[in-house]
Amino acid sequence: MKEITSIQNTYIKNLIKLQEKSRERKKQGLFIIEGKREISLAISARYQFDTILYYPDLISEQEILHLFNANVNRIEVSKEVYQKLAYRDSTEGVIAVTKVKDFSLENIKFKNKEPLILIAESIEKPGNVGAILRTADAANVDAVFIADAKSDLYNSNIIRSSVGCIFTNQIAVANSEEIISFLQKNNINIYATTLQNSNEYHKENYTNATAIVVGTEATGLSEIWRTKATQNINIPMQGKIDSMNVSVAAAIVIFEAKRQRDFKI
Amino acid sequence: MKEITSIQNTYIKNLIKLQEKSRERKKQGLFIIEGKREISLAISARYQFDTILYYPDLISEQEILHLFNANVNRIEVSKEVYQKLAYRDSTEGVIAVTKVKDFSLENIKFKNKEPLILIAESIEKPGNVGAILRTADAANVDAVFIADAKSDLYNSNIIRSSVGCIFTNQIAVANSEEIISFLQKNNINIYATTLQNSNEYHKENYTNATAIVVGTEATGLSEIWRTKATQNINIPMQGKIDSMNVSVAAAIVIFEAKRQRDFKI
Repeated sequence: MKEITSIQNTYIKNLIKLQEKSRERKKQGLFIIEGKREISLAISARYQFDTILYYPDLISEQEILHLFNANVNRIEVSKEVYQKLAYRDSTEGVIAVTKVKDFSLENIKFKNKEPLILIAESIEKPGNVGAILRTADAANVDAVFIADAKSDLYNSNIIRSSVGCIFTNQIAVANSEEIISFLQKNNINIYATTLQNSNEYHKENYTNATAIVVGTEATGLSEIWRTKATQNINIPMQGKIDSMNVSVAAAIVIFEAKRQRDFKI
Repeated sequence: MKEITSIQNTYIKNLIKLQEKSRERKKQGLFIIEGKREISLAISARYQFDTILYYPDLISEQEILHLFNANVNRIEVSKEVYQKLAYRDSTEGVIAVTKVKDFSLENIKFKNKEPLILIAESIEKPGNVGAILRTADAANVDAVFIADAKSDLYNSNIIRSSVGCIFTNQIAVANSEEIISFLQKNNINIYATTLQNSNEYHKENYTNATAIVVGTEATGLSEIWRTKATQNINIPMQGKIDSMNVSVAAAIVIFEAKRQRDFKI
């Protein structure tokens, strides 16, 4: 059993790089998961683990072995090292160095003929990406596509704000052109949320194969989505304020689609 | 014209207290608004201003006079003072010391016979209160009731996360018993969102006088709401995660009510 007690340790320094830098995650093919619930969801999603670090005052080796395969590579760390790595207030004593998955469109598979897909374009705030993934999980959509991502999905703020729903959704990351061509090839209707030339969202039918596309609050969807959409849609804004939080807008339209499908597909 | 250049000034120190402490806001009957858009919305809502502070390198006195009544009490402040008071990155040079309003239930007035009301019980995070107010504005609900508030509404995080919708909504703050008795007296149906003994939200009719009640993610609604509700309702959760962000849940049910009302009332 290895043990690390110094925050000056080069392995620990490398983990901090993985937490902070998208570039390092890409280069090393690894990212960090914190929290038992998030780790459990990643296990269910068949993520593979490189190394598990644990602080034995908070979690026993036995519990680690119960969570993971007995062959998992594990390192005991000191309080100081654990606190350096842990992000949370309510710490649980375990951090998983995890292998990234391939978010290619080619890996996407649908279980039914009328999939419901949520697409988010160029969302800047990790908290909004996380909130969208959480809504997508609740609605059990068939896939989430991230178009023109502003950050890699293994950003710790996205993992945290998604409360682990980064692991429960079928996800692809690609540019808008690639996603549109995928949708067209698969005969999936595109509903782009935008104020321009659009119908009210609740007057459309989402029971066929449907992709609902949301963009940033500041600039909205880019032109390619507005022009390639089967139909542009808007949520009537009846107050004094002219914009909605993007994750709230996504939830309103996705759950209208679910309602039309009577929550069956 | 007064001018303040030192952050040691007792008036400035008092403003910082107003920003930070609910108790001071209550005692002095004043709170702080930052940002031109928020201040404009407060002006439209007929808030009264005690004093306007402005930093002339960012906003001219002429613009201040254009925004406010010429009789408004105004103070020029130095860059240092302004930066001490300002919360935002994208600063706009103006801070309004504003008189609080009375959020009593007795002041609530409805324009139509079938009002739609959003009620939030014991929400802890200011960001969630703000997000709920933003959704309420978009849906143009008739009133928002805050039951058993965890903070006064003039908390700067609530003002900011509501993007000023604290000023655009008709709001009352009271305890749950008072609100329930108000609703019963006014023959308003109560739909409490809870997993226990509840129907799916989309199978209920919200076209009569309707109050939709949401609670905290952690503990849900308290018993009094569940037992006094006309009907308990739930949003089907079909994923791996068993809770929703409260502002997202509120938006889904409120916009289902708006859809049933064809966005007309």
